[in-house]
Amino acid sequence: MKAPPLFSRTRRGSVSAAGEQALIGMIRKWLGPSSPPSPAGIGDDCAVVGPARGRALLTVDPVILGVHFDAGIPPRQVGAKLLRRNLSDIAAMGGRPRAAVVALALDGRVSLAWLAEFYRGIALVSRRHAVPIVGGDVARIRGSFAATLALSGEAPGRILTRSGSRTGDWIYVTGSLGRSLQTGHHHRFVPRLAEGEWLARRREVRAMMDVSDGLAKDLPALSPKGAVPALFGEALPRRAGASVREALCDGEDYELAFSVSRRAALAPFEDAWRRAFPRTRLTRVGRFAPRGDLPPGALTLEDYRGYEHLR
Amino acid sequence: MKAPPLFSRTRRGSVSAAGEQALIGMIRKWLGPSSPPSPAGIGDDCAVVGPARGRALLTVDPVILGVHFDAGIPPRQVGAKLLRRNLSDIAAMGGRPRAAVVALALDGRVSLAWLAEFYRGIALVSRRHAVPIVGGDVARIRGSFAATLALSGEAPGRILTRSGSRTGDWIYVTGSLGRSLQTGHHHRFVPRLAEGEWLARRREVRAMMDVSDGLAKDLPALSPKGAVPALFGEALPRRAGASVREALCDGEDYELAFSVSRRAALAPFEDAWRRAFPRTRLTRVGRFAPRGDLPPGALTLEDYRGYEHLR
Repeated sequence: MKAPPLFSRTRRGSVSAAGEQALIGMIRKWLGPSSPPSPAGIGDDCAVVGPARGRALLTVDPVILGVHFDAGIPPRQVGAKLLRRNLSDIAAMGGRPRAAVVALALDGRVSLAWLAEFYRGIALVSRRHAVPIVGGDVARIRGSFAATLALSGEAPGRILTRSGSRTGDWIYVTGSLGRSLQTGHHHRFVPRLAEGEWLARRREVRAMMDVSDGLAKDLPALSPKGAVPALFGEALPRRAGASVREALCDGEDYELAFSVSRRAALAPFEDAWRRAFPRTRLTRVGRFAPRGDLPPGALTLEDYRGYEHLR
Repeated sequence: MKAPPLFSRTRRGSVSAAGEQALIGMIRKWLGPSSPPSPAGIGDDCAVVGPARGRALLTVDPVILGVHFDAGIPPRQVGAKLLRRNLSDIAAMGGRPRAAVVALALDGRVSLAWLAEFYRGIALVSRRHAVPIVGGDVARIRGSFAATLALSGEAPGRILTRSGSRTGDWIYVTGSLGRSLQTGHHHRFVPRLAEGEWLARRREVRAMMDVSDGLAKDLPALSPKGAVPALFGEALPRRAGASVREALCDGEDYELAFSVSRRAALAPFEDAWRRAFPRTRLTRVGRFAPRGDLPPGALTLEDYRGYEHLR
């Protein structure tokens, strides 16, 4: 099936012809069971969500035309990516997603057929992870399309933040890295929610984040003071065809990076992982070395740069 | 003081010269005490918020260049408005605000001086209502500026939704209506949080919403099945200089509209209001009449249209 164009060729097929009230009705229809009735869903001033078990999590990420997708990407994948990006942030804390709101800023010429597919993409991921879309907003912006999704979550147990690593700790990465845009991984990935929750329960795991801007740019945030990541290039789990540079810098991997205590017994930890997630690759990619005391052959991340959003 | 222009005349003064990491540091500085340290604030994959008392609320609203503000509005007021719009939604349920995240989509030429003022405006409102800004995102969009704020709240007690009104119930409105844009009310208003919480505790109040698109467009959402709002034009609390049409249609009032049981004793209710909120005007503007049986002289809202976001 050919994907519908982002901008409608006829006024009749555009969001401005529909008007706001009708459009909100269509969005509820496109979302289907992902859109609960108000006040738990779309239709009131706020959405009402049940109380969180444990602490609450909150995150926000957009998809923007020309930045996170272009007109050639099927809209269903754009919608799916929007929710998945945010789910990956919840996964990175070891949390569980609860409910999302979506704010659209779009040109009046955006095609209703395109938008329907976009919301169907959100709905697919919403159902898979049992995260209802409980509210949103629709507003105009000239010549563009930006959808911003805010996701609330909960952490019944331990939360894994980015801090807590110590010098000597091991660095692990799930899945493979690099060439996410070229291979379509960036809109097809499955957020590592089950893995994140499992890791948060493991005492030997000290800190965690998701890799979204490339390992080279992201890992410093996981590094303890006075230490730097010492990576062994040949250990990096590279996506098919990816160079070491691509694995480190491409971004949009949406994998988990985490540190494991230098005192942990690694073999039982890795065995337990393989039993829990036989299909998710796990790779020990390096460790945090004292600054100025890198082991011979280790990659210096300063030679690599990740994705820079504003340049 | 002259407000800085939205787009910088020099590259040095623009967000693209700063780059993403430096910009996030600046945002934390501009927010000051409104930006708690991570993981309770900016700097991790999600923000960690304490558990909600009672049910959780979630809402999202943007400010977009050319829609919610133009380049002539001082940026501090744009930032303040962004948070206030969302606070008004929490007020409309009778809830309390807890924490917010802000996603920026902006052209690389946006001026750092403008953005600093924008965040100072958010910070002012954040402090006044004790709502920390706990996270966000920064991304590019060509030729525009859109900031989307998602706000989480809590409702320890009763929630007032838009449903629950019955035929014969009275309709009340706080404050004054109309000419919000011309008078600057739309970026100066104080969200009716205390009033909303108070109203949610009053048993005679049945349903509530905030008036953001104009009473004519918003009130149908508060109306019971088979009934329509019967308003008396002369009773409408109009802002200085506003016509009845402007009071009904202008939008951006950010006042509360609510219904009170037709069986309630109105005098004690109104007395209690005046003791609680001596400085907030409260007006009984009409009641819900059976469709096709409007009292003589009542305004028919179908003759008026509110603000349409997409046309």
